[in-house]
Amino acid sequence: MAKSKPVSESLTTMTEMIFPNDTNTLGNLMGGNLMRMMDVVGAICAQKHSNRIVVTASVDNVSFKESIPLGSVVTLQAKVTRAFSSSMEVVIDVWAENIPAKERVSTNKAFFTFVAVDQSGRPIDVPQAVPETEDEIALYEGALRRRQLRLVLAGRMKAQDAVELKSIFE
Amino acid sequence: MAKSKPVSESLTTMTEMIFPNDTNTLGNLMGGNLMRMMDVVGAICAQKHSNRIVVTASVDNVSFKESIPLGSVVTLQAKVTRAFSSSMEVVIDVWAENIPAKERVSTNKAFFTFVAVDQSGRPIDVPQAVPETEDEIALYEGALRRRQLRLVLAGRMKAQDAVELKSIFE
Amino acid sequence: MAKSKPVSESLTTMTEMIFPNDTNTLGNLMGGNLMRMMDVVGAICAQKHSNRIVVTASVDNVSFKESIPLGSVVTLQAKVTRAFSSSMEVVIDVWAENIPAKERVSTNKAFFTFVAVDQSGRPIDVPQAVPETEDEIALYEGALRRRQLRLVLAGRMKAQDAVELKSIFE
Amino acid sequence: MAKSKPVSESLTTMTEMIFPNDTNTLGNLMGGNLMRMMDVVGAICAQKHSNRIVVTASVDNVSFKESIPLGSVVTLQAKVTRAFSSSMEVVIDVWAENIPAKERVSTNKAFFTFVAVDQSGRPIDVPQAVPETEDEIALYEGALRRRQLRLVLAGRMKAQDAVELKSIFE
Amino acid sequence: MAKSKPVSESLTTMTEMIFPNDTNTLGNLMGGNLMRMMDVVGAICAQKHSNRIVVTASVDNVSFKESIPLGSVVTLQAKVTRAFSSSMEVVIDVWAENIPAKERVSTNKAFFTFVAVDQSGRPIDVPQAVPETEDEIALYEGALRRRQLRLVLAGRMKAQDAVELKSIFE
Amino acid sequence: MAKSKPVSESLTTMTEMIFPNDTNTLGNLMGGNLMRMMDVVGAICAQKHSNRIVVTASVDNVSFKESIPLGSVVTLQAKVTRAFSSSMEVVIDVWAENIPAKERVSTNKAFFTFVAVDQSGRPIDVPQAVPETEDEIALYEGALRRRQLRLVLAGRMKAQDAVELKSIFE
Repeated sequence: MAKSKPVSESLTTMTEMIFPNDTNTLGNLMGGNLMRMMDVVGAICAQKHSNRIVVTASVDNVSFKESIPLGSVVTLQAKVTRAFSSSMEVVIDVWAENIPAKERVSTNKAFFTFVAVDQSGRPIDVPQAVPETEDEIALYEGALRRRQLRLVLAGRMKAQDAVELKSIFE
Repeated sequence: MAKSKPVSESLTTMTEMIFPNDTNTLGNLMGGNLMRMMDVVGAICAQKHSNRIVVTASVDNVSFKESIPLGSVVTLQAKVTRAFSSSMEVVIDVWAENIPAKERVSTNKAFFTFVAVDQSGRPIDVPQAVPETEDEIALYEGALRRRQLRLVLAGRMKAQDAVELKSIFE
Repeated sequence: MAKSKPVSESLTTMTEMIFPNDTNTLGNLMGGNLMRMMDVVGAICAQKHSNRIVVTASVDNVSFKESIPLGSVVTLQAKVTRAFSSSMEVVIDVWAENIPAKERVSTNKAFFTFVAVDQSGRPIDVPQAVPETEDEIALYEGALRRRQLRLVLAGRMKAQDAVELKSIFE
Repeated sequence: MAKSKPVSESLTTMTEMIFPNDTNTLGNLMGGNLMRMMDVVGAICAQKHSNRIVVTASVDNVSFKESIPLGSVVTLQAKVTRAFSSSMEVVIDVWAENIPAKERVSTNKAFFTFVAVDQSGRPIDVPQAVPETEDEIALYEGALRRRQLRLVLAGRMKAQDAVELKSIFE
Repeated sequence: MAKSKPVSESLTTMTEMIFPNDTNTLGNLMGGNLMRMMDVVGAICAQKHSNRIVVTASVDNVSFKESIPLGSVVTLQAKVTRAFSSSMEVVIDVWAENIPAKERVSTNKAFFTFVAVDQSGRPIDVPQAVPETEDEIALYEGALRRRQLRLVLAGRMKAQDAVELKSIFE
Repeated sequence: MAKSKPVSESLTTMTEMIFPNDTNTLGNLMGGNLMRMMDVVGAICAQKHSNRIVVTASVDNVSFKESIPLGSVVTLQAKVTRAFSSSMEVVIDVWAENIPAKERVSTNKAFFTFVAVDQSGRPIDVPQAVPETEDEIALYEGALRRRQLRLVLAGRMKAQDAVELKSIFE
């Protein structure tokens, strides 16, 4: 196994068209269906980084600020931000386009965490993720703080011990 | 419109069987499919409280600690915890059962936020949610802190101003 | 294995939203899709009573008196009425709601029969089902007559021998 | 509108392959999925007879005596048996084949009733159905008895008044 | 294994209703969904001829000249035209009907090629296909020319060697 | 409307995971499901070039040389090769990966043709497609020959008049 890999090698792009069954009563994409797409693109991305089967470990806060109507084209882009032993944080950016109207908006940015597992489902170590661009470095550095927030929210770390996280409240 | 409603009136139960297409390479329910189910049950619950069309506004951190194999029965229970003008926080509890093996585990607890809208998609006020049991009151009280976390994470509130949230780090 | 179980232990509630692909040309839920939902909730209910894998053995006459439009919320409630060696009769009640309009109608009541099987698909005995409320007792008592009707219709009992059933024509 | 049409003009054949998501834990077609296919083929058949939009009015007792494994080819054949003002009884025969093993079994025979409606969903008269073969005549004649059973079961006719039906118990 | 079989034994009819999720922004059946249906009916047809598991080897040029709106009934008819050791050419005819409007149009004619395989996926010989009607004979004779075109297009035969095919340009 | 656009602006990438319901009896992706994905990615690509609603006009010969097992990741890349008044030829390349095994194979290359239409479905002119790289120029030049083949196969051009096409047989 490679000891480390540039995060750019995990870049995964998914393009989807919004079909009737993906929509709610107002004819817009349901949040749950978008999360399903994010989970698939994120899992492929984490597979690329680890060359392993992966399972979803957690999803950070996702907010849905734009409605995405029937017939839109949705583009999802996923990239590993940082690896921690067997787990990988993946950032997913989503854009929606009404192509005939030449409108394209950024609709979501979310962080998913995946764990690499062997055939029996046991966690297994993955390569370090090496950021290269300025953007990738910022995401890499923020990953520690987001990880502490996840552990605090899951009740697996005391808020007082989340040093990185605490600093933003001071 | 009623000025307020007990949260118990919004209780919604959904039971699902896990089919082959819901599963990943290891034969377990994919996280994204579970989030899709949570979104549907949460939306029905928020509809019940508000008697309005609702749209998903955000999903708080969800962690997936248990794998749910093919053939499992999944039970989702949703209840409004608190309403803020046009938005409602909904708590969703998920259990998975292997009925022939008489095993039942709690697999997830998550908070979704929905906004009530009119036919043109504009936000519209909803009744206050009145907690009655001890559990409901605890959820009601925690809702403010979770809301501040959501606003901070969405960049719509400064961390320093999130008074309720800050207190847990002290 | 328990020798007998109260029927209330098998109670199963399923809540579904009607999506575009579930509907016919008039925008209403197709009968076949409702029957598919009834089959799933009934199978989960029979699994709960028997703690076994179950297969659908038969469906009694179902009539569709109300149309259920796109966007409706459908609630299905299933309960075992009576067990006969390896088979269980399950009653399924269905309501449809247009929540924003505060309308809720009872749309269907149907009886499904499931058989508990082992891993090779061979029938295997299940606990007796013990009715407790007045309603449950009435359903328990009617089960024998419905079973005779099923056997007559399947050509496995002569009409003249269906004592319970004949009595209703006199 | 034609006053009458031979039942043979409504003959509709549907062939389907059983995919993973159609199956239960034992790898066999779920009863509910078969009923969904029967509903679609029956609706097309009733459309052909009436040249109208149709909705499912009722399904008679269906029994599932054979298991249909993943990969099977299922053939459904539907034909109108008799028309009553706006409603049509359709008989549906189902066979399952394991083609590589050269096995073909008859798995189900069921009666569905459809009602022809106009664009607003109001019932509208359909042509008489004229049976021609011996088989078609037998089905035509039995239709009255099955209709009485349906009305009795739906609580819309007293058992004592169901003359055709009563005769089979004597 | 039979040495040869009349092509009529492979005749397979599939009838489908067009549901919302099958359609594009204009409410018409998407080409890709029609190709999916053609692949399934063609595979069943080739299974019937060979009594083997089959896999899709190629699809010839398909053109979509008619739009097929939501609610249409689509009939697909498939028949083997000719067998070449382990491969079978299947012709698929498609009609679309708007039954209430009494309109029926021929929408597509396409040739798919399937290969019979054993459980490990290795090609295995199939019976000769014997044409009987004038139409079947014409299809049988054209099969050689279409096969050469396929091989030329796949880069597996030089255009100059495609004797049958060349003749149509002279 | 732009008079012309570089073909690179239409580049569209779609990444999909192969789920159980996409597969045949041998556990491999069915050809028809791959064609459905190709149709969607091709339509998005043609939308990007034309900024119009598009419909599928034809699919050229597609051959399936590699089997793609369950759990594979499929990447589809589509690019307009050339525009002819209202129609656009799109080339679609498909790769399949077994990521844990570090295997990636090119599985298909196909040409789809889409027509830009207005809201009533009438054809409407699109910008010229300008090739820039060597590869794009070769595809642009071959487009005329493929177009003649399509017209000959659809019976809309005599083989003898297909000048470009004939040349390859000499």
